[in-house]
Amino acid sequence: MTDNFHGWAATGAGQALQAIEFNPGEMLADQVQLKVESCGICHSDLSMLDNDWGQSTFPLVPGHEVIGTIEKIGTHTKGLAVGDRVGLGWFAGSCLSCQPCLSGKHQLCSSAQQTIVGRHGGFADRVRANWEWAIKLPQALDPASAGPLFCGGITVFAPIIDCGVKPTHRVGVIGIGGLGHLALQFLNKWGCEVTAFTSSESKAEDARKLGAHHVVGTHDKAALTKLSGSFDFILVTANVTLDWDAYIAALAPDGRLHFVGAVLEPVPVAAFSLIGGRKSISGSPLGSPATIATMLEFCARHQIAPVTETFAMHDVNAALDHLRAGKARHRIVLKN
Amino acid sequence: MTDNFHGWAATGAGQALQAIEFNPGEMLADQVQLKVESCGICHSDLSMLDNDWGQSTFPLVPGHEVIGTIEKIGTHTKGLAVGDRVGLGWFAGSCLSCQPCLSGKHQLCSSAQQTIVGRHGGFADRVRANWEWAIKLPQALDPASAGPLFCGGITVFAPIIDCGVKPTHRVGVIGIGGLGHLALQFLNKWGCEVTAFTSSESKAEDARKLGAHHVVGTHDKAALTKLSGSFDFILVTANVTLDWDAYIAALAPDGRLHFVGAVLEPVPVAAFSLIGGRKSISGSPLGSPATIATMLEFCARHQIAPVTETFAMHDVNAALDHLRAGKARHRIVLKN
Repeated sequence: MTDNFHGWAATGAGQALQAIEFNPGEMLADQVQLKVESCGICHSDLSMLDNDWGQSTFPLVPGHEVIGTIEKIGTHTKGLAVGDRVGLGWFAGSCLSCQPCLSGKHQLCSSAQQTIVGRHGGFADRVRANWEWAIKLPQALDPASAGPLFCGGITVFAPIIDCGVKPTHRVGVIGIGGLGHLALQFLNKWGCEVTAFTSSESKAEDARKLGAHHVVGTHDKAALTKLSGSFDFILVTANVTLDWDAYIAALAPDGRLHFVGAVLEPVPVAAFSLIGGRKSISGSPLGSPATIATMLEFCARHQIAPVTETFAMHDVNAALDHLRAGKARHRIVLKN
Repeated sequence: MTDNFHGWAATGAGQALQAIEFNPGEMLADQVQLKVESCGICHSDLSMLDNDWGQSTFPLVPGHEVIGTIEKIGTHTKGLAVGDRVGLGWFAGSCLSCQPCLSGKHQLCSSAQQTIVGRHGGFADRVRANWEWAIKLPQALDPASAGPLFCGGITVFAPIIDCGVKPTHRVGVIGIGGLGHLALQFLNKWGCEVTAFTSSESKAEDARKLGAHHVVGTHDKAALTKLSGSFDFILVTANVTLDWDAYIAALAPDGRLHFVGAVLEPVPVAAFSLIGGRKSISGSPLGSPATIATMLEFCARHQIAPVTETFAMHDVNAALDHLRAGKARHRIVLKN
């Protein structure tokens, strides 16, 4: 017999969350069950709550930046034991047998399960996931603030590795929020010269503390023009439409404009603007389990941590309002 | 005293070419002077003749796929001697001292001289270039057809190297013209599974002979949909607007859509369509002197050569008409 889980769910798009109790069904052989200690709130939780992407099913329990302790373990899991403290992010399962999975790119698995798509996430007392996406948290990291690494963190860390960013590079980060504030820390410790682009003057000082060597207004056309041809890598963590031509022009030869923010409006790209300087535009979703483990090690070595504000889990609606109001500095964590 | 050169020039945008005689001025220390044997005709010659890119100056002597013999050599050139048979492409000089030049990426030099921009090109009896862009032609290559390698060829060969195309990849080539017909040969010998996309049914059989394993209509939506998620690399040699969303969807995870054709209308890119599969869109201009030499070796080893039609240099206007009519199969070469 399976005990019921207790979570916070929206019953329809845009609705406030309310406490629900639900039966999670039998646990599968390749799953582990976590007792949730804390869970970060990501903009994707809002997008799912508002059904912006048309893939939400209600009732919906959001939450995909979970820190928890394994309290139950399936018969076919690997490398984990009851009592292990782990993190769980956007993905909760991959097939393990497709070409991307076998190549160590589980986040590109076309049948990957997403923690809050068609299943319940981490705004709850318990959550389940396949073993490969429950990644052990190193002792050196503070579990109270580590949750956001598992979505916001890996989303910006993976492209640093996968796009071949080098310590000698000049890099830019657009948007200093949940993702951007981690990107600044990673790229500073990576050895790069880091420029933060933000539309909020109040974040400039923060951005410098987090590792930015320079801060530029996101819409400051004159400043951008001066920076023409200077960036090897610009990471777009914002999800708004910007003057993309100006940002492409700001790339150095062989430079890359990389999207991890789900900008909904198409980016108009003139082929000519790529051809001359051999530039590229790309995107990526999260990172693999192996890259997550690498990120956690890097965080431990360099004392990198999400800057968080903590709310009690039962204050989830106040926390969501705080995020929607653009007031989060820089990531909210819900604590059970 | 410098002898006059004899060339074929347009006196204004869209004008027919006529014979001109001009004084090339004193030869510079880092230049070589070629006696032109032959010169290919590239679509860029048409674009420059029509001033499509707003950078033409008239009178304009087109021609940037030159094969010639060095008849005069500056005092500060390296590695070349009078009598050497060389090829000359789009670039006729780089500064040699900027970061891209010193990194072996002379084609990204921001002060590079372009053979037919602000100077006279290869539809002439003689042409000059800086020594670094006059690349020796291996004995094994037929000089009568080799000219097009120096623009059309290197434009499609360089991205195969620079984008890390692997012999295990599934690749597509859009547009089977001067560039595409060489891309098919390169990619077949590279070991790839090659699909040619062409809007011209008459080119299907040709494409197969040149190395395509599959041929698909450029606008065949049903066929494209079937190919969804299957290409590691798609090279766009056409300069027309296509259903780019469908081609991005046809990319496999980590796939790349690469532009070498100067598509003038912006390509609308949905960030979401890149993020999920970690895809990218990029572009590149020609290739470096070192990559040109590598390409020539590869051509010699695999008997790769442009498929050409030959016109006498003085029939240049008939040759241009033939190209404009879309009748060239696949590259026209003018012979002195």
